[in-house]
Amino acid sequence: MDRKSPKKGRLPSMVQPIAFYFDFSSPYAYLTAQVVDELGARHGREVAWKPFLLGVLFKVTGQQPLLNMPVKGDYARLDLARSARALGVPFVVPESFPFHSVAAARAFYWLEDRDAAAARSLGKALFDAAFGQGRDISRAETVIEIAAERGVERAAIAAALQDQAVKDRLRREVDRAVEAGVFGSPILIVDGEPFWGHDHLPDVERWLDSGGW
Amino acid sequence: MDRKSPKKGRLPSMVQPIAFYFDFSSPYAYLTAQVVDELGARHGREVAWKPFLLGVLFKVTGQQPLLNMPVKGDYARLDLARSARALGVPFVVPESFPFHSVAAARAFYWLEDRDAAAARSLGKALFDAAFGQGRDISRAETVIEIAAERGVERAAIAAALQDQAVKDRLRREVDRAVEAGVFGSPILIVDGEPFWGHDHLPDVERWLDSGGW
Repeated sequence: MDRKSPKKGRLPSMVQPIAFYFDFSSPYAYLTAQVVDELGARHGREVAWKPFLLGVLFKVTGQQPLLNMPVKGDYARLDLARSARALGVPFVVPESFPFHSVAAARAFYWLEDRDAAAARSLGKALFDAAFGQGRDISRAETVIEIAAERGVERAAIAAALQDQAVKDRLRREVDRAVEAGVFGSPILIVDGEPFWGHDHLPDVERWLDSGGW
Repeated sequence: MDRKSPKKGRLPSMVQPIAFYFDFSSPYAYLTAQVVDELGARHGREVAWKPFLLGVLFKVTGQQPLLNMPVKGDYARLDLARSARALGVPFVVPESFPFHSVAAARAFYWLEDRDAAAARSLGKALFDAAFGQGRDISRAETVIEIAAERGVERAAIAAALQDQAVKDRLRREVDRAVEAGVFGSPILIVDGEPFWGHDHLPDVERWLDSGGW
């Protein structure tokens, strides 16, 4: 299977992947990314990683980035640090934040069409670079560097980030996320049931255990 | 003890109450109200109920009521219904929503100064009226009716809702909530550590179990 996305007729109909919608610039999605594959595996589920661009959705919902909100932003920083400690993973807010994640998302989808496992690995490395190390993954050069460290040919990914077909691919994925009702990051969809927020993973787990309630 | 609020020198210093900040018009606070006293009791903690007015805080944080937000509001309705099913409690969104909770909050504090247990019972009844039965508790008449059903003298509470001292009491409580950094409903504060949202109760429980991490 070279694609993780659920496509009609391409997967056994019994068990659908869990859809993991996220923006690479979302700190809560960074936390979810640490555990979501294992969560799926515990329930015999693939997890389909689906990066999108939160900025496009904010235009639809009228939201603003969480960490920029007065008072609420301060709480979010505390809660993020606390949640990261609970997982035993590092957490920093990158110096330039919020940041654009177009290059990261394009790189992910381009690589996914070629090697799904490598794309997953790149996705985790991009999250870790941003929120584990505070690197600026809004820069194409950083994304290329991180991909190159994982064996991706520099010239190929550099070209891909400028390729109209890759740009269109991401645009389609963002449109699909909007159509699926996605409005925030992370959102997990389990058999049509949406769960918003890293803090809802226990609900996802319970839903998978019980088949809903 | 006729007061549940933590006051300097009035409580043994070893164990502070859990502060439960909420707006009576907050559906997620309705859910938390179903379980928060039992959660506290499991850890030997009193829970101090602290109604405030979210509208005042929204002016500070620039938020708008959750259920009014495009897309996000639809999700919130789904998530609220699902969370209520998980608790085995009824849930409806009252016909007039969002609604003003000034009368409910004034009634609570007025009664709390006279009989803390009766105020707790009234608080639960007000939440149940609004989100269990869909009654309009923004109306002073409804609040008086619900209090009267629980043995409170009609004339006394009707007068209290217009009493300047009671109005001032609520205003002070809202100011204190703002000073405490409260920006949403429900927010629980455990030994100075804030937890926002009904979905964070598992974190509160874990924090109480472990003394923090």
